[in-house]
Formats: sequence, structure tokens, C-alpha cells
Amino acid sequence: MGEFKTTWRVQYYETDRMQIVHHSNYIRYFETARTEMIRSWGYAYSDMEMAGIWLPVLSVEAKYKTPAVYDELLLLKCWTKGLRGASLELAYEVSNYETGEVHVTGTSRHGFTNADLKPIRLKKEVPEIYELFEGAMKK
Amino acid sequence: MGEFKTTWRVQYYETDRMQIVHHSNYIRYFETARTEMIRSWGYAYSDMEMAGIWLPVLSVEAKYKTPAVYDELLLLKCWTKGLRGASLELAYEVSNYETGEVHVTGTSRHGFTNADLKPIRLKKEVPEIYELFEGAMKK
Amino acid sequence: MGEFKTTWRVQYYETDRMQIVHHSNYIRYFETARTEMIRSWGYAYSDMEMAGIWLPVLSVEAKYKTPAVYDELLLLKCWTKGLRGASLELAYEVSNYETGEVHVTGTSRHGFTNADLKPIRLKKEVPEIYELFEGAMKK
Amino acid sequence: MGEFKTTWRVQYYETDRMQIVHHSNYIRYFETARTEMIRSWGYAYSDMEMAGIWLPVLSVEAKYKTPAVYDELLLLKCWTKGLRGASLELAYEVSNYETGEVHVTGTSRHGFTNADLKPIRLKKEVPEIYELFEGAMKK
Repeated sequence: MGEFKTTWRVQYYETDRMQIVHHSNYIRYFETARTEMIRSWGYAYSDMEMAGIWLPVLSVEAKYKTPAVYDELLLLKCWTKGLRGASLELAYEVSNYETGEVHVTGTSRHGFTNADLKPIRLKKEVPEIYELFEGAMKK
Repeated sequence: MGEFKTTWRVQYYETDRMQIVHHSNYIRYFETARTEMIRSWGYAYSDMEMAGIWLPVLSVEAKYKTPAVYDELLLLKCWTKGLRGASLELAYEVSNYETGEVHVTGTSRHGFTNADLKPIRLKKEVPEIYELFEGAMKK
Repeated sequence: MGEFKTTWRVQYYETDRMQIVHHSNYIRYFETARTEMIRSWGYAYSDMEMAGIWLPVLSVEAKYKTPAVYDELLLLKCWTKGLRGASLELAYEVSNYETGEVHVTGTSRHGFTNADLKPIRLKKEVPEIYELFEGAMKK
Repeated sequence: MGEFKTTWRVQYYETDRMQIVHHSNYIRYFETARTEMIRSWGYAYSDMEMAGIWLPVLSVEAKYKTPAVYDELLLLKCWTKGLRGASLELAYEVSNYETGEVHVTGTSRHGFTNADLKPIRLKKEVPEIYELFEGAMKK
């Protein structure tokens, strides 16, 4: 399943007047998780962009189960759910690092595009990166 | 359907290095839209919270069609898709105010809770607010 | 002195667990105020960037007097404190729109640069924009 | 001088259309640095708040020298510049972790207050925490 794990410390500015993490910030945690997952494969997302391969978000969805709070250490999990020639589906789980309590789960879909946001067939055009994603899925 | 409309000017800090609005910010635009929709019913969401009725987000989903850019004037639409005794489903559309080009569509589900985030049966416990939502749906 | 005024509604995601606006957001309000001030002169900042004139921030400072809260309607004031051939100093005041209570005051300094962030002598190179700033200062 | 160091990876959502970190985010980096500095003294800021001691920001100032970019690993430095019975002055430097290039420097002033934001004389009322700050300054 190639499940990847990283951590995040909840920042003060990420909380809101309900004294919990504002729901929009989990979408940002998802991004942090997938960025670090791609880095763990030996190829930083920043390098992918330099090489002209972009991963714009086509859709995102989040389910909120329990709230995270200020200064909490979070465990961010990310894994590849689906990979096609021109698109990618990822899944996420945000939980408390110590207790394992699940706060939020979600998914995102991404297209592979060039820097002008035109779709590219990753498998054909940049097979070495396609194989990185594929390899990670099978792990 | 009681479709509500408001506007938003894209801020510099909402853009990212792709030179478009960062995808997480649309989740914030959804919140702005629903807040202004509730205000338009004659009852600010801030007053609802004061009265001990909270609307935490249970889930959110967004579909990204075209990117919005810096300084663009956006049209934010919001409407009620579903209303039950203890929960609410809203829908959103973010588009260019002048051309009507659709950037992002989405939905969110909310529970009605008290300030301790315990669910309440809005219809039974605070019927006057339930009726506001209901009335808006039928408009 | 050419004091410009605009308004801003405090958003939920701008508050923090202290149940007040997070202090970093006033720096963003300053930006909104100067953007709208420049627009009011008949020349949007987005057009200035298109024309290759950028205004990167050289320094910023804010003094926090009283906290703003969720859903408050703010009055954002901005005015030009100083203008030289290659730089600009602006001042700000953020207050409650209804009561006039002052929340935060501040200043920012900006350089005039091209798109590569190289300084330009605005007065010499783009006198028509220099004169816009100058004219606004004298009003 | 008790200079404290921590790191931060620049996030995608922290960049703007100038393709650099938006200037407002350095104010947030300052907060992260002081939070981690206080934690390093054996007393998390979240615990200080639980104990009824708050550190609201009275003023902040930042000087922007060079821009940080996406995915850059930053070194955040923080140190105590001044400590009085009821207030605290901190200083910051944000630089590239590898090259040492300085991006932004700044300072912030804080009051010691109770949870109602009323000033307290920390030295008198909670000497054990005052001594933590004092000890760190002398290191």
C-alpha cells in the first residue's frame, strides 16, 4: 500500500475561535503529506515542477471526525489510491500522533500537466516519474 | 431554490506560486458564502454562536474546473441542498463575476451542535432557527 | 493627506483560539488597504504588475492596541507617508467601523522594482505612475 | 544570548504569485520560533496558556532582505532581547538553512496577561516562569 507517514505540529494561527483547527487547514495538511511522500521517493515535488510536471488538484474531499487542537502533534498519512496515465488519486488520514485518534480522512485527485496546465500522458512522456508513483503504490 | 450570491475580491496572499488561487482557499470562500447567506436571512452566524448553536463542518468537497487569479472579482453562490433535524447540506459555486466562468463547485455538510459540540435536534430545540433554514430552502 | 478608507468583514478563519483576530492577519489587512487605495487612483495594482512595476515590501511594523473579533466590520485606512524616487512609505489604521475603536496601527516600506525584483527609479522610468502616488499624497 | 534555532520547510500555500513566500507568513514563522524556544525551556506555551498566562503581541516588526522560495528549508532563530516585570521583547532571524543567506529579521514585544488579557506582573505573580525567561536570556 506504500502508506507514507509524516508529522505536523498544530500552529496557533491554524486554530480558530472554536479553539480547534480551522477545517480549511486539513486541506493544507493533505498537501504537506503528499509533498513529503513524493520527496520520500527520492524526487521532490519542487523538482517535478522544475522539470515541467505539475500536479494541479482536480478535486478534494474531507470528512471531519474529531477536532485537533493547538500544539497537538499530528500524524499525517498519505497513500496512492489510483494511478492512470494522466491522473492520480491520493488518500489521507490525519490523527493524533500519540493516541492514534483519527481527526480527518480525505482524498484528492490530481492531473499531470505541463507548466501551462495542459494535461500530459505521464506514462508516455515521463515514464521514469510514472514508475516512481507506480512503484510506491505496490510497496 | 433560495440561491444566495455575494462577491469576493481575490487577495494577493490567496495566490500561490502557480500564480492562481491556492486550492485550499476555496474552502474558505465556501465559508464566507454560507456566512453571508445566513446573515441575509436576518440572523448572523455570529449571533447563532452567541445563542449556543454551532454548525461544525462534517464534510466538505470541492471540484476544481478552472483557476481564479489575483485581483479577480468572484461571484460566490450558496444554496441549501438538504435539511434534516440535526444536519444541513449546502452547495457552492465560485465563478468569475463578469464572465460567469465557473472555477470551483462544492458541497459541505454540517451538524447542529451546542457550544460543546454535542449534537442538538434543531427542529425541536430551536424551531425558529430551523424554520429560517427551511424557509430559505423553499424560496 | 489623501487618507483612503475601505472596509473588511472579519472571517472565521482569521480568528484564533484566543477568540480574536490572529495578529498576522493585520499585515494582510494592510495589503488589502493599499491595494484598494491604489485602485481608487484609477490604476489597479494588478495592472501595475502587468506593466512590470512591482512593489515588494521592504519592511512592515504593526502596533496592537485592542483586539478585533469574529464578524466585526473593520474600517481599514491607508495613506502615503513618504515617497522617494525608488521607494514608498505607507501608514495604516485598522479600527471598528461603527465605534471607531482603534485596533492596530502600522507602516510599511516598499521598493519600486521590475518583475525581476531589481530596483527602478519610478520617477524617471514611469513618471505617470510616480505622479499618481505624488498626487494622492497631496490630496 | 540564549539564541534558539529551529527549522521550517516552506509550504506551497505560503508562496504567492510573485513565486516567493508572502511577506505576512514571516510573522507566522516568528511565532513558530518563539513557541519552539519556550518549549525548549521545558515549558510549552500551550501549558502556559492552560496555567492562565498569556503572551499577546503588543507590536511586531519585520525587515525583508531577500525572498525565500517554495520548499526551501529555513533556519528560524529566536532570542530574548529584553525582559521586564510585565513585558518581553524577542528578536528573530529567518535564513536559508544551508547557505545561511538571511531573508528576514524582526522583533516582537509581548505583554504578560491573564486569560482575560489583563496585564500581570509575571515576576511577582509567577516567579518560576519569569525565571525561565530570565535564565534563557543569560545563557
